[in-house]
Amino acid sequence: MKMDLSNRFLRTRRFTEQLCKPLATEDYVVQAMPDASPTRWHLAHSTWFFETFVLARWKSGYQQFSPDFQYLFNSYYNSVGEQFPRDRRGLLTRPTVVEVFAYRHAIDQCMQELLASHEDMEMTEVVELGIQHEQQHQELILTDLKYLFGCNPLWPVYHEPGAQLPTGHRASAGWTAFPGGMTSVGHDGSGFAFDTERPRHKVLLRPFELQDRLVSSGEYLEFIESGGYNKPELWLSLGWSTIRQQEWKAPLYWSMHNGQWHEFTLRGLRPVEMGSPLAHISYFEADAYARWRGMRLPTEAEWEHAASDLPIDGSFAESQHFHPVEAAETGDGLLQVFGEVWQWTQSTYSPYPGYSPPPGALGEYNGKFMCNQYVLRGGSCATPAGHIRSTYRNFFPPDARWQFSGIRLARDAVDGH
Amino acid sequence: MKMDLSNRFLRTRRFTEQLCKPLATEDYVVQAMPDASPTRWHLAHSTWFFETFVLARWKSGYQQFSPDFQYLFNSYYNSVGEQFPRDRRGLLTRPTVVEVFAYRHAIDQCMQELLASHEDMEMTEVVELGIQHEQQHQELILTDLKYLFGCNPLWPVYHEPGAQLPTGHRASAGWTAFPGGMTSVGHDGSGFAFDTERPRHKVLLRPFELQDRLVSSGEYLEFIESGGYNKPELWLSLGWSTIRQQEWKAPLYWSMHNGQWHEFTLRGLRPVEMGSPLAHISYFEADAYARWRGMRLPTEAEWEHAASDLPIDGSFAESQHFHPVEAAETGDGLLQVFGEVWQWTQSTYSPYPGYSPPPGALGEYNGKFMCNQYVLRGGSCATPAGHIRSTYRNFFPPDARWQFSGIRLARDAVDGH
Amino acid sequence: MKMDLSNRFLRTRRFTEQLCKPLATEDYVVQAMPDASPTRWHLAHSTWFFETFVLARWKSGYQQFSPDFQYLFNSYYNSVGEQFPRDRRGLLTRPTVVEVFAYRHAIDQCMQELLASHEDMEMTEVVELGIQHEQQHQELILTDLKYLFGCNPLWPVYHEPGAQLPTGHRASAGWTAFPGGMTSVGHDGSGFAFDTERPRHKVLLRPFELQDRLVSSGEYLEFIESGGYNKPELWLSLGWSTIRQQEWKAPLYWSMHNGQWHEFTLRGLRPVEMGSPLAHISYFEADAYARWRGMRLPTEAEWEHAASDLPIDGSFAESQHFHPVEAAETGDGLLQVFGEVWQWTQSTYSPYPGYSPPPGALGEYNGKFMCNQYVLRGGSCATPAGHIRSTYRNFFPPDARWQFSGIRLARDAVDGH
Amino acid sequence: MKMDLSNRFLRTRRFTEQLCKPLATEDYVVQAMPDASPTRWHLAHSTWFFETFVLARWKSGYQQFSPDFQYLFNSYYNSVGEQFPRDRRGLLTRPTVVEVFAYRHAIDQCMQELLASHEDMEMTEVVELGIQHEQQHQELILTDLKYLFGCNPLWPVYHEPGAQLPTGHRASAGWTAFPGGMTSVGHDGSGFAFDTERPRHKVLLRPFELQDRLVSSGEYLEFIESGGYNKPELWLSLGWSTIRQQEWKAPLYWSMHNGQWHEFTLRGLRPVEMGSPLAHISYFEADAYARWRGMRLPTEAEWEHAASDLPIDGSFAESQHFHPVEAAETGDGLLQVFGEVWQWTQSTYSPYPGYSPPPGALGEYNGKFMCNQYVLRGGSCATPAGHIRSTYRNFFPPDARWQFSGIRLARDAVDGH
Repeated sequence: MKMDLSNRFLRTRRFTEQLCKPLATEDYVVQAMPDASPTRWHLAHSTWFFETFVLARWKSGYQQFSPDFQYLFNSYYNSVGEQFPRDRRGLLTRPTVVEVFAYRHAIDQCMQELLASHEDMEMTEVVELGIQHEQQHQELILTDLKYLFGCNPLWPVYHEPGAQLPTGHRASAGWTAFPGGMTSVGHDGSGFAFDTERPRHKVLLRPFELQDRLVSSGEYLEFIESGGYNKPELWLSLGWSTIRQQEWKAPLYWSMHNGQWHEFTLRGLRPVEMGSPLAHISYFEADAYARWRGMRLPTEAEWEHAASDLPIDGSFAESQHFHPVEAAETGDGLLQVFGEVWQWTQSTYSPYPGYSPPPGALGEYNGKFMCNQYVLRGGSCATPAGHIRSTYRNFFPPDARWQFSGIRLARDAVDGH
Repeated sequence: MKMDLSNRFLRTRRFTEQLCKPLATEDYVVQAMPDASPTRWHLAHSTWFFETFVLARWKSGYQQFSPDFQYLFNSYYNSVGEQFPRDRRGLLTRPTVVEVFAYRHAIDQCMQELLASHEDMEMTEVVELGIQHEQQHQELILTDLKYLFGCNPLWPVYHEPGAQLPTGHRASAGWTAFPGGMTSVGHDGSGFAFDTERPRHKVLLRPFELQDRLVSSGEYLEFIESGGYNKPELWLSLGWSTIRQQEWKAPLYWSMHNGQWHEFTLRGLRPVEMGSPLAHISYFEADAYARWRGMRLPTEAEWEHAASDLPIDGSFAESQHFHPVEAAETGDGLLQVFGEVWQWTQSTYSPYPGYSPPPGALGEYNGKFMCNQYVLRGGSCATPAGHIRSTYRNFFPPDARWQFSGIRLARDAVDGH
Repeated sequence: MKMDLSNRFLRTRRFTEQLCKPLATEDYVVQAMPDASPTRWHLAHSTWFFETFVLARWKSGYQQFSPDFQYLFNSYYNSVGEQFPRDRRGLLTRPTVVEVFAYRHAIDQCMQELLASHEDMEMTEVVELGIQHEQQHQELILTDLKYLFGCNPLWPVYHEPGAQLPTGHRASAGWTAFPGGMTSVGHDGSGFAFDTERPRHKVLLRPFELQDRLVSSGEYLEFIESGGYNKPELWLSLGWSTIRQQEWKAPLYWSMHNGQWHEFTLRGLRPVEMGSPLAHISYFEADAYARWRGMRLPTEAEWEHAASDLPIDGSFAESQHFHPVEAAETGDGLLQVFGEVWQWTQSTYSPYPGYSPPPGALGEYNGKFMCNQYVLRGGSCATPAGHIRSTYRNFFPPDARWQFSGIRLARDAVDGH
Repeated sequence: MKMDLSNRFLRTRRFTEQLCKPLATEDYVVQAMPDASPTRWHLAHSTWFFETFVLARWKSGYQQFSPDFQYLFNSYYNSVGEQFPRDRRGLLTRPTVVEVFAYRHAIDQCMQELLASHEDMEMTEVVELGIQHEQQHQELILTDLKYLFGCNPLWPVYHEPGAQLPTGHRASAGWTAFPGGMTSVGHDGSGFAFDTERPRHKVLLRPFELQDRLVSSGEYLEFIESGGYNKPELWLSLGWSTIRQQEWKAPLYWSMHNGQWHEFTLRGLRPVEMGSPLAHISYFEADAYARWRGMRLPTEAEWEHAASDLPIDGSFAESQHFHPVEAAETGDGLLQVFGEVWQWTQSTYSPYPGYSPPPGALGEYNGKFMCNQYVLRGGSCATPAGHIRSTYRNFFPPDARWQFSGIRLARDAVDGH
C-alpha cells in the first residue's frame, strides 16, 4: 500500500513531465488569457501543493524550498497566504523552466523519502488528493497550450502523430431509454472522490432518454448553416448577449480557409472532421443547439444514473489522440460516455444535500466555486485515464470554451410525465 | 367574470399611477444604473405590453398608438422586434411624462372597451399575465426609485409617513423543524402562475429546520463587526472578488454618519433599526452570513414546502410601509414568510422537470433568464399584496442588491442524514 | 460703469434662461455622456460661480443659499472643496428645475444688491469673469442638448424656426495670402480676456495662405465618398485607432435615411445641406481631411494674425439659427471667420511664453487643462455674440465632436520656404 | 564609404545581440504591457525592417525569408500590409528565439552581400535609417526588459556589475542664463536626422535660464514628502485624475522596504541613491514638480538652443551603467545634457513649420504620432552613444513612465518679459 502510493505519485509526476516533451522553452512561459496558465506555472503549482500540504506538515524538519515560491505558486488558497495575482502569472520569466524542474525534482525526492518512511492515514489522503490535483493540471496543461498555440497564426503543432486518428463512421444516432424513479447519485465512499461528489444521496428521476453517442461536428454545422447564431429565440438571454459581444459564429478553434471549415487541434490546423465529436463549445451553444433540435441537455443526475455501470473507456490523455475520435461503427447502448469531450449538463454546480467542505485550507479546493458554473461529466481526450469516474463533477462557467467540451443530447420520455 | 377582470385591470393600472404621486417630473426620467429603469419607462413599457400582446391581437381594427413606441418600449422581446438599448433608457426625455400618461390612458380606454365587448380564454390569460406584469413593474418602480434617490446626497424622501412604522421587539429567533420526505412543489393549476412555477412535481427533502423569523439588521451588524467582510474563508470565490472590487463593507444603502450606522430608505435617511429585517444584500452576503453562523440558506423546495399552507400576510406595497418591519413579539411557527424582504434561497433558477416555455413571444418572458441567477421567495414590502404566492419564483443574479432582499436561515436537522 | 456691469450681468443671466424656453422639464435632467452636463446643472453651476466667487467674498453678511449646493454644483475647483462626481451629474433629480430657478433668482437678487452698492476693481473683474463663464455655459447648454436630443430616435426639435435659414450659394473657395514675418498674438490688455490669452507676445510666421471660407458639408462628403475613412495613410495613428474603435464613418449627427444623408440639428432631422459649413467633426477628421486635400490646418497664430482686424460678424446664438449657414455669394477676403463653427487649428493648447495662472481657486479656471487638447478659434452659431474675439482660445481633446467644430484650410505659400 | 556603412551596420546588429547576452530564453518572450514588446519581437522586427525596406527593393532576385514574418513583425506600417496586433505580441512563442536569431543572421548575410555589391544613394539613406531604427529598439529592449523584470517579485538582475557606478557628489545646482532672441532650431542637413527634426527654422526665444544639472532623486523625495501627490493645485487636470486612478505616489520602480525607499534597476533592487538623477517619471510628475518649485520645464527650442554647441558625453548604453549617474563634483556650464535620463520638455510633439513626411511607407515612421505626445530631449543611459544629437526629438505620451525619463528645470529670466 505504501509502495503503491509512492509508485502512483511518481508515475503521475512523470506523466506531467512527459506531456511537456514537445515544448520549446518559450512555450512554457506565456499566459494567453487569465484562465489559461503557463505550463511553467502548472509545473510549479502542482509541486507547491505537495510541498505546502504534505511536506510542510508531515516531513520532520522540512525546510521550505524557497519562501518566494510560497507566494508565487499559491493559486487561490487564502488560508495559506497572499497569492501572486492570477492574471499576471505570465509576467514571470523567473524562476526559469530549468529552475522549476529543479524545484519539482527536489520536492519529488523529499516526497519519496517521506512516503517510504512515514505512514499516516490523513497524509495518505492528502497525497492522494495531490495526485488527483496533479492530474487536473495535466489536463489544463493540454488545454492551456492549445489555447496558446491557437493564438499563433503559425499554428504550432503540439503532437506530430505517427499514425492517423482512429475513425468510426457511425452515421446515425439512437436513443437509450431510462425508466426513472428513485435512484442514488454521488460517491459511496470506496476509492478517491472529491468532497463535492459526496454525500451519496437519493434523487428522483422522471423517465428520460439519452442519445447513444456524442453530437458530431457535422451535426453542429447544420445548426450553424441553419442560422443558429442569428436566432435569438434559441438562446439564453445571457448567451445571446455573449455571442453578440464576442462575435461567436462557430466553435472556438474553427475558422474558414478557402471556403472550408478548419479547426485548430493539438495536431495542427486541419479540416473539420465531420463525424468526430464536436468540441470547444460553451454551455450557451450546447443549450441553444439542444433547443434547436427540440431536445435538451441531461441533468447531472440523469447522466450519472446512466453512466454508473458502464466501463470507463474512450480516448484519454494517454492515448495521445489529443483530439476526440468518432464513435465506433458498431456497439450497443451508450457510446462515448467517458473520454473524448466533457459533456455539458443542465445542472448548475451546487452542493449536494448535506455537503460540507473539509476543514482548513483544503476546504477551499472546490466548494467556494459553487456559483455561476455548470457541471460537465465524463472526461475528455485530455483527461488522464485514471482520473475519471461516473460520479466526477467537473465545472466551468457557461461561457468557457477552451476545454474539450461537447454535447450529449437528452429528452423526456415520450409518455414521461 | 368579465367585469372582474376589467376591474382588476383598472385597479392595477391605477395603483401604478398612485405609486407615482410623490414624484416630481424630474424623478421619472433618470436611469441610475442599467438594471434600474426610469419610472417613465416602466409606465410606458407596461402599457406597451397590453397594446402589443392584447390590443394588437384581439381588438379589431386596432391602430397602433405610435410606431416609435413599439421600438422604444419593448424590453427584451426579440420576437416582437428590435429594442431600444436597455442601458440607454435614461437618455430619452421624450415622450414626456405627460405624453406617457396620455399613452397609458388611451390604452386603458381601449382595453376597457375590449374587455367589455370581447371574451376569449386565451385573451383572458394574456390580460391576466399583463396585470401580473404590471405588478412586477410596480415593485421595480419602487426599488428603482430608491436606487435613484440613494445616489443623491440630498437623500430625497419618497414617502413622508403620517405614522411611525409598527415595531415588534421580537428578540430571539427559534427554529421550526420539518421531517422531509417526498413532497410536491410547483403550481398545481388553479389560479394564475408563471410558466416557470410549473409543472408541479415531486421532490425528495431531507429533514431540515427553518429559523422562524428573518435575520435582523442587528444580527447582520454582528457579522460586520466580527470582520465578516475581511474573511475570505466565509465567501464564495466570486463573492470575495466582488466585495473586493466593489469595496462592499455593509449592505447597500448603509452609511456611517457621526459614528452611527444609517440606512437610506424610501422614508429618507434614518438610523438603522436593529430589530428590523435586514434588506438590500446580495446572494454573496446572504451566503457568507449563513456560513458564518454555521448554517445555510434554504433550498427553494424547502422554503415552498414550509410556506405552502401559511397565510399570505406581512408588509406589502399597499401598506405604504415601504420598508420591512420587525416581527411581532408573539406568534407561533414561521413568521415573516411573506412580505418584508425577499428571501434568498441556495437554489439556482433552473427549469422544473418537464418545463417548457409557452410558444411565441411570451415564451421569452421567463425561461431565457435561467442562467447565473438565484431564486428568491416570499415577496417584499414593495410587492403588491395580490401578486405573491408560495410557489412564486423570483430571481436575481448573485450580486444584485437593489431589491428588498434578505435572509431566512436554514439548517439540516440534527440527526438529518 | 457700475450700472453697465449690472445690466450686462442681468442680460446675460436672462439670455441663459431664454435658451431654456423650449425645454420640457424632462430635458433639463439627463446627462447623455460624461462631457455633456444636464441643463439643470449648467443653470445651477453658473449661479454657484457667482455665489462662491463673488457673494461669499464681497457681500457682507452673506448667508450661503444651501450648504449642499457648494458640493453639488462645484465643477472642478479643488481649492473650493470636494466635487460631486462629474459623470454622475445626471443622477440628481433634486433640487428640481423649479428649485434651481429659485436658486438662480435668489442669487441674481443678491448680486444686483451687491453691484448697486459696492464697487471694487477686483470684484468687477470676477463678475466679468462670471459673465463670460455664464456665456460659455450658454454654448454648452445648446451643444449638450443637441447631443441629448440626438440620442433619441424621435429626433426632438429644439427650435422650430419661423423662417428658413439664410442661404449663400457661394460655390468656389479662394485663398487669401499672408506674407508672414514677425507679428504679435495674444491679448493686449484692454477689455476682457481669459488668462490664457496673455501675455501678448511676438511670433514669427512664414508666408501662408488661408482658404476664404469654411469647408462645406458637400466638400467633406467627397472625402467620405473617396473612402477617406478607410485609408490609414490619411490619419494620425491615434485618429485611425479612434475611428476604428468608434466605427466613425461620417460626422457626428449624420445618418443615412432612404439613401440620403441627413443630419440631426437643433431644428430637427434634415437632409444635409451641402453648401453649409461642415460641423461636428473631431480634430482627427479635420486633420485627415486637410491631408487628403494636400493642405493643412492653420496654426492658431496664423489664424489670429489673419483675423485680428476683421469685424466680428456671423451666426451666433442670438441669431437663433442654431446651425451654421452658408457663406454669402459675394464678399472679399476671409469670410466666415467668426461664428458658424469653431475652426480646429493644428496648435495644441499650451501656455503662451510668460503665462502664469492667477492665484487662488480661479487659477484652476483654464491652465490645468493644457494637456492633450487642441485650440479652436472663431466661435460658432452656439456662441453668444459678445463672447468671441480674435484672441479667444477655445480648446477640446482631438476626439471631441459634439461642439459645432469645423474646418478652415491653410497651406504654405507657394514659395514659402 | 561603402565599407563604412557595412561596418556600422554590422556593429549595430552585433550590439543588439550583445544586449541580449544576460537573458534566459524565457525573458525574450513576455510582453508585460502593450507598450513594452518582447525582446524576441524587437530582434525580429528590426530585422524585418531591413528585409522589407532594403532587401526586397534593392537585392535582385531576393526571396522573402518567410511570408508569415511579413505580417508577424510589421509594427505599424499600414502601407506594407496588415499587422499582427501590437498588444498580442507576447502570445507568440514561435518562431522560437533560436529561429529569430537564425532570421537575423540570414538577413545580415544578405545585407552584407548587398552592401558589398551595390551602391545607391537612396538605399544608403534607408540603410542608415534602419541602423538608427535598430538603435531605437536597442533602447526599447532595455526599457522593456526593465519593465518586465520589475513585475517579478524576485527582482531579477539584468546586469551584475563588476564595478560600482561612478558617483559625483554634486550637491548644489546652479543656473545658466541665455539671452534669448532669434535663433534657429532643427537639423541643418549634414549627417543623419529624422524627418521630424527638419526643416531647420527660425524661432524667437525670450531670455531664460536652465538649471545646470538634472533633478536628483533626493530633490524629488522632498516633493513626495511635502505631500506633492496629494495637492491637486500642483497638477494638470489630466495628471491629477491619472495619479488618482493609477494610485501613483512615487516614481515607477520605487517601493518602500523596511522604511527605506528602494528602486528597481537593471542592476537589481537597490536603495534609492539620492544624488542620482531622478528617472521614470511621467510628464505629469515632471510638470507638477516644476510647478511646486516655482519653476517650469524648458521648451524644446530652449533646450536645443542651449545644447547645440555642447559635447555629447554622459552615460549611454555602451557604458553598461544601465542607470543614470550623479553629476560630477566639478564642471562649468550645463551638465548632464546628454545621456543619463531623457528630459521632458513642455513642448508637444508637433510638426516643424514646413514639415512634410517622406513619401511611401517610411512616411509612417514618425509623423503620424504627432498627437497627445510630449517631446523629450538628450538621450539616456539606455540610448546608444552614436544615436543622440542636439536636434533629436524623442516623444512619449504624458503618462509614460517606463523610459528613463527625468527633469531639467527652467525658468524665465528674472527681467525676462
